[in-house]
Amino acid sequence: MKGLFRGMGSGAGKAPGTLVESDLTRQHLATTIELVQLSPGLLERRPIEPEALSVELRTDRISWIRLIGFRDLAAIESLGASAGIDALLLEDCVNPYQRSRFEEGDGFVFATLKGLWFEAAGPGSTSLIRGHVAIYLSDRFIVSFEEEPVPALESVVSRLSEGRFRERVDSRGFLAYLLADALVDGCFVALEKLSDSLEEMEVRLMDHPGPEELSAMHRLRTDSLLFRKAVWPMREALSDFQRCDSRLLGDSCRRHLRDVYDHALQVADTVETLRDIVSGMLDTYLSSVSNRMNQVMKVLTIIATIFIPLTFLAGIYGMNFHHMPELGQRWAYPAVLGLMAVTALCMLCYFRRRKWI
Amino acid sequence: MKGLFRGMGSGAGKAPGTLVESDLTRQHLATTIELVQLSPGLLERRPIEPEALSVELRTDRISWIRLIGFRDLAAIESLGASAGIDALLLEDCVNPYQRSRFEEGDGFVFATLKGLWFEAAGPGSTSLIRGHVAIYLSDRFIVSFEEEPVPALESVVSRLSEGRFRERVDSRGFLAYLLADALVDGCFVALEKLSDSLEEMEVRLMDHPGPEELSAMHRLRTDSLLFRKAVWPMREALSDFQRCDSRLLGDSCRRHLRDVYDHALQVADTVETLRDIVSGMLDTYLSSVSNRMNQVMKVLTIIATIFIPLTFLAGIYGMNFHHMPELGQRWAYPAVLGLMAVTALCMLCYFRRRKWI
Amino acid sequence: MKGLFRGMGSGAGKAPGTLVESDLTRQHLATTIELVQLSPGLLERRPIEPEALSVELRTDRISWIRLIGFRDLAAIESLGASAGIDALLLEDCVNPYQRSRFEEGDGFVFATLKGLWFEAAGPGSTSLIRGHVAIYLSDRFIVSFEEEPVPALESVVSRLSEGRFRERVDSRGFLAYLLADALVDGCFVALEKLSDSLEEMEVRLMDHPGPEELSAMHRLRTDSLLFRKAVWPMREALSDFQRCDSRLLGDSCRRHLRDVYDHALQVADTVETLRDIVSGMLDTYLSSVSNRMNQVMKVLTIIATIFIPLTFLAGIYGMNFHHMPELGQRWAYPAVLGLMAVTALCMLCYFRRRKWI
Amino acid sequence: MKGLFRGMGSGAGKAPGTLVESDLTRQHLATTIELVQLSPGLLERRPIEPEALSVELRTDRISWIRLIGFRDLAAIESLGASAGIDALLLEDCVNPYQRSRFEEGDGFVFATLKGLWFEAAGPGSTSLIRGHVAIYLSDRFIVSFEEEPVPALESVVSRLSEGRFRERVDSRGFLAYLLADALVDGCFVALEKLSDSLEEMEVRLMDHPGPEELSAMHRLRTDSLLFRKAVWPMREALSDFQRCDSRLLGDSCRRHLRDVYDHALQVADTVETLRDIVSGMLDTYLSSVSNRMNQVMKVLTIIATIFIPLTFLAGIYGMNFHHMPELGQRWAYPAVLGLMAVTALCMLCYFRRRKWI
Amino acid sequence: MKGLFRGMGSGAGKAPGTLVESDLTRQHLATTIELVQLSPGLLERRPIEPEALSVELRTDRISWIRLIGFRDLAAIESLGASAGIDALLLEDCVNPYQRSRFEEGDGFVFATLKGLWFEAAGPGSTSLIRGHVAIYLSDRFIVSFEEEPVPALESVVSRLSEGRFRERVDSRGFLAYLLADALVDGCFVALEKLSDSLEEMEVRLMDHPGPEELSAMHRLRTDSLLFRKAVWPMREALSDFQRCDSRLLGDSCRRHLRDVYDHALQVADTVETLRDIVSGMLDTYLSSVSNRMNQVMKVLTIIATIFIPLTFLAGIYGMNFHHMPELGQRWAYPAVLGLMAVTALCMLCYFRRRKWI
Repeated sequence: MKGLFRGMGSGAGKAPGTLVESDLTRQHLATTIELVQLSPGLLERRPIEPEALSVELRTDRISWIRLIGFRDLAAIESLGASAGIDALLLEDCVNPYQRSRFEEGDGFVFATLKGLWFEAAGPGSTSLIRGHVAIYLSDRFIVSFEEEPVPALESVVSRLSEGRFRERVDSRGFLAYLLADALVDGCFVALEKLSDSLEEMEVRLMDHPGPEELSAMHRLRTDSLLFRKAVWPMREALSDFQRCDSRLLGDSCRRHLRDVYDHALQVADTVETLRDIVSGMLDTYLSSVSNRMNQVMKVLTIIATIFIPLTFLAGIYGMNFHHMPELGQRWAYPAVLGLMAVTALCMLCYFRRRKWI
Repeated sequence: MKGLFRGMGSGAGKAPGTLVESDLTRQHLATTIELVQLSPGLLERRPIEPEALSVELRTDRISWIRLIGFRDLAAIESLGASAGIDALLLEDCVNPYQRSRFEEGDGFVFATLKGLWFEAAGPGSTSLIRGHVAIYLSDRFIVSFEEEPVPALESVVSRLSEGRFRERVDSRGFLAYLLADALVDGCFVALEKLSDSLEEMEVRLMDHPGPEELSAMHRLRTDSLLFRKAVWPMREALSDFQRCDSRLLGDSCRRHLRDVYDHALQVADTVETLRDIVSGMLDTYLSSVSNRMNQVMKVLTIIATIFIPLTFLAGIYGMNFHHMPELGQRWAYPAVLGLMAVTALCMLCYFRRRKWI
Repeated sequence: MKGLFRGMGSGAGKAPGTLVESDLTRQHLATTIELVQLSPGLLERRPIEPEALSVELRTDRISWIRLIGFRDLAAIESLGASAGIDALLLEDCVNPYQRSRFEEGDGFVFATLKGLWFEAAGPGSTSLIRGHVAIYLSDRFIVSFEEEPVPALESVVSRLSEGRFRERVDSRGFLAYLLADALVDGCFVALEKLSDSLEEMEVRLMDHPGPEELSAMHRLRTDSLLFRKAVWPMREALSDFQRCDSRLLGDSCRRHLRDVYDHALQVADTVETLRDIVSGMLDTYLSSVSNRMNQVMKVLTIIATIFIPLTFLAGIYGMNFHHMPELGQRWAYPAVLGLMAVTALCMLCYFRRRKWI
Repeated sequence: MKGLFRGMGSGAGKAPGTLVESDLTRQHLATTIELVQLSPGLLERRPIEPEALSVELRTDRISWIRLIGFRDLAAIESLGASAGIDALLLEDCVNPYQRSRFEEGDGFVFATLKGLWFEAAGPGSTSLIRGHVAIYLSDRFIVSFEEEPVPALESVVSRLSEGRFRERVDSRGFLAYLLADALVDGCFVALEKLSDSLEEMEVRLMDHPGPEELSAMHRLRTDSLLFRKAVWPMREALSDFQRCDSRLLGDSCRRHLRDVYDHALQVADTVETLRDIVSGMLDTYLSSVSNRMNQVMKVLTIIATIFIPLTFLAGIYGMNFHHMPELGQRWAYPAVLGLMAVTALCMLCYFRRRKWI
Repeated sequence: MKGLFRGMGSGAGKAPGTLVESDLTRQHLATTIELVQLSPGLLERRPIEPEALSVELRTDRISWIRLIGFRDLAAIESLGASAGIDALLLEDCVNPYQRSRFEEGDGFVFATLKGLWFEAAGPGSTSLIRGHVAIYLSDRFIVSFEEEPVPALESVVSRLSEGRFRERVDSRGFLAYLLADALVDGCFVALEKLSDSLEEMEVRLMDHPGPEELSAMHRLRTDSLLFRKAVWPMREALSDFQRCDSRLLGDSCRRHLRDVYDHALQVADTVETLRDIVSGMLDTYLSSVSNRMNQVMKVLTIIATIFIPLTFLAGIYGMNFHHMPELGQRWAYPAVLGLMAVTALCMLCYFRRRKWI
């Protein structure tokens, strides 16, 4: 949970539409802006300067401007200006805490979503990354904003180099769909990882439930909680997206988006299930630890309980009274030993009959 | 929970509408495609090749193409092409993680549902199978996709051989209804099984609550959870199904579907009840185990508590001081024994008066 | 929970509209069909054969056909045929697991409801019965189906013999209202019984919380759970009933039904409250048992803790070293006894100051 | 919870609209009917006979008929008849279990609400009273029904004697608003009382959490539960009230009612908050009791653990073997004492290093 | 929770629209009224008398009347009268318990919101302040009411002195937006503080979970609960605000308000997440404390269990029987010591094999 919401309040007291350098982004990647242009026969990728945007765009190609890293606020503002993005929207674009949402405006379609993936966070432990992604689709290009490079979008770029795949991308709207689809598919991958951790945890719980398992389960629960919190607004945003009737999206595009929405529903459902299973597992863990502990305590207490009366008996004949007639008898010692054995046996039988051992 | 969601993410990064061989299906049945044609007087079943589909169909009969097993993607794609199923829908047809949903399109009606049943998973243990089923109804035939043979659909096939039953099947829509009805009725059977396990568990809990009971209850809870997660979307899909006004479904068919929907509601209700009863049972189990444990510990502690002071008394007279006047008295030994007896009795009385024993 | 849902799945694999002899009904009453005809001046009750139905009906009277017991499926089918009840509806009429629902059709109004009452189930224990009731109102008569005789409906029959009461029954719709009203009023009676058990339980908990109380509370919780599950769909069915604008129901009848609906709301509300109180009581019970147990253990442990160091002291002077100078002193024995007393007193004071005793 | 729902079922099996003498009311006040007539310059209060109602009413004044106590059913029926109140409504008027609701009819407006207040129930304990109030507003007068005198309405009567206040009451609708407002304001008073008990409880919990605190918290929880259950339907009834467009209520009146509704929302919100705080407090109590108990047990166990090995050592040299060379040595006794001290110190250090003490 | 709802009921029994001096406000700031007038080139701030309001207002400037502290009811009433604020609204303006809500009327727009911030409440502890703020926007000015000076509004005043910022404030509507925006941004700051406390708590829990941590967590939970209760109605109020189509708000203003609403959604979401994390943390804390305690008890019990049988053995040979043949043997003493060592070793091995140590 390191810095879960650190820097969230750093925009307070600023004029609306003012870009804010959050604590979080300061530690992150420098801003890079890349222009991806594609046509069925060609894929061109190169970094650009925001000012040169209008010069570089070619209308016969599908243009995707991909911005990564929010450190250089001047460049972002300059890009916003060239691309004609409203100041309030631009603020949402680079606010890593922005909730997933969809907005349709005059000549543009805008969505903020989350890319979810697990990243190694040390030996044997991973942490869930909820990367902020904003997609702005206008009638000239798509602009995407990423806080840090999101694996799902990386994979879209790399697959665009496949000719067969590229041929299907026939419009900016379809490209927007591809990005959304990649993000949701990325959720499935993360979900599978989460589910694997869960299964592994279940096995560990059966073998040797211990304190590390407890804190690992706490992490699993927090992860599934954060996952859920990221997915639910995304579901709503995608629902709005697929219902939107902007002319920027064709009919086929809308059908594909409905499919993405459907997958998001499935992700949300599965996250719920996992969350419920984690809860159940925690209960079972607690009961099982407590059962085991009780078992141990019971056995130990039974041992003590058997020996304490015997020790008392021994104590009796350890007393130094001058007149203890038994002490002088030949048979007394074996008799006492026998009495002790009988006592112990009776107690054992009694405990067993009451099913205590 | 073995492999609960394994393979879920394997479609990530693929083009939309690309069929994906999931980890799960790889272990499953090879693809078989069977053509079932029926008319009031006749039932014909035989395997077909997807390419030969249009040749084989006879318009004067009701045709049902039943595909089982998702291993052979080429055959599935070929069937999709011959049957005119859209690529996105076909992807949903063979995605075993597809959530239950309903879609009505131009000239077709499509639903994914779940077949639920219990399967023996080892000696004395069963596991809940949630088998994926997709039903595609066009104006020429019904196509059904099953991940593995679903008992409910098997039973429909076998009952179609009864002449009296077959006579009632007067349209493709009615056949679609029959399939949905069989799936929901299958849920009742599974529910009864679950409820029986619950009752059996309750009896076992009364007899001897132990760690195996705990893990069995954990399983029961997970089962009722998964059951519920499978049934709720199904309920929604059937609600959409019965409200749909496609010309592929007649009025009487819609009335029957309303009945199916009603049964699905009943299943959902009952699952909720079972889930609540399982939760209550778990609480009762924990309290009961803890009560019993407390009982044991109390008795044992009482025994120790009575003997520890007596042992102390014996210890006193075991001391080797030269000048202990009591030691020389004739009456001292019986007096000390008596004192011990009195002490023990007093303690017992006190404990009894405070209702500790 | 004996056989809570046994026989639920026995209709699976049957043709729709097929009557099924469930496991449950087999143990129940044989089918009896009674015709109740009433006019302001007269009440006539006699058993009839389903075939003779049309002969027996007199249009100048209000006719109520009351069927009890679902064993004789042939008679039920025959009644359904004479009364013109659709096969699917008839199936719902005799399905004891049918969820409460309302349906308005062409020339009929149909509702399934539940009669709830407590029945003695052994010495000192009662069980909640959720009796299935179906009411079918057509323009010629009312037909009611009961799995077993429901006390609420019995009371309607007996009250119809009072002339003053009978005079108010001026239409079949009003009679239907009377039946629904009697069922909801029966819920109040059962609710009061439940609430009494709750209060009695609260008193018992204060006196001596024990394991029987735990299982009694488990029963109370299950009862209030099942009660709730029965009442909620009933509430919905009555809501639909009172909103329905069938010509079979007059305006005054609808107003009366709104009143019934209002009472059902009240029942549902009260059940919720009871359920919450039971939950809270369970928590309090657990805390109280645990508190009491802790109290016992603390006292016992304190006794042991005081005597163990004293026993150690006695042990010291029980050692047989030849050179233990203290042993020879005259004052040594009383001094050690005094030391022991002081030690014990100090410990007692310390424990008291820390508020442990 | 004494008699929480006793008498609820006593109306079962009666004809609709039959007034029922519930168990509860039998113990309550005799029925008194008072006529309050007011004009800006005058306030007149006097008891009346229901039969004389039409004679007594003066159309130039605002008339309020206030009925308290439900014992005399004949008088109530007679009042209902003179005032033209429908039998079904009248039944709701005097049913103390009636849920809060609103109904608008032809020429009347009807609402049942709850007056909530705390009443001393013994030394140091109070109980929440949920008094039933029904308000019937017709175009001639207002009739109010109270199970027992509700403090909130008492205060309205007493304030009407202030001239300045009375001048604002310019219509029957406004008077109805005043009654509703007084009831909701009464909830605030009760809420403040509840919140004070909560705070006091929090302080007591910090000082000395004990069993009485537990049962007091149980009472607080039940109180906040019952409070909530009373307030929620009231909120709905007031929502309907303020939306109703009956000509009996003027525009300004409706604006005032919206204000009342707003206050009811606030009450509902605050009750929720209190309920959540009570729950949290209970958890904290349990944890704190358990922590404290654990602390005690740990210290006691540590004492025992230190002395048990020492006693064993002493036991060794208390054995009577003839050949125990150590026994004859001069240094043996002090050496053993030293060994014991060292052992005890080592154990103490070990326990401290592991932070057990 | 000091005085959480104290004084809430003090308005009961007053005429509607009567201002009430609540217990709470009595301890607070005296009433000050300040007039802030601004135009692009100028910012003027000065205290005014409510009576002189109409004289002071200049129509060519944007006027904001800021009232702080609710002690002087006469001044507030006078301001209300000069500003034309309805009595009922004015009551809401100065009711510190008023729930957040929005109202649009004829010529005015009215909203009550909450300012949330943390204030040092003693050494090392802070408390969440939920300051009441009411904003009344008419076509001549904005009036704001604050119970105590809200930091968020202070910051707006101070930023208005910056020329560049002031230039953007081109309408009263925009100023209203600025106030709402500042309040929501203040929530982010408070949220960040809360989230920091949470993180700090998590670290403390790992280091040394103790009773102070428990009560700190209880405080955190109550804080997040109260935060949530304050934010949810605010979210609704802002939703109504941004949807309102009053002519007092321009189109651009509405777009900005939508942005504020969006941020409020984000706050609400984050609060939920924090609340869930706190709950999870509490569970983990309890489990961890219980685990640690169990660990301690187990080790202690094991030590006792090992020594009790050994002490028994020693007790045996401490008995004073005359005829105990072993006592005379040379090898007996070392043999018994050996036997003791072997017994202890066996027990240790057994415990280790069963994984108890």
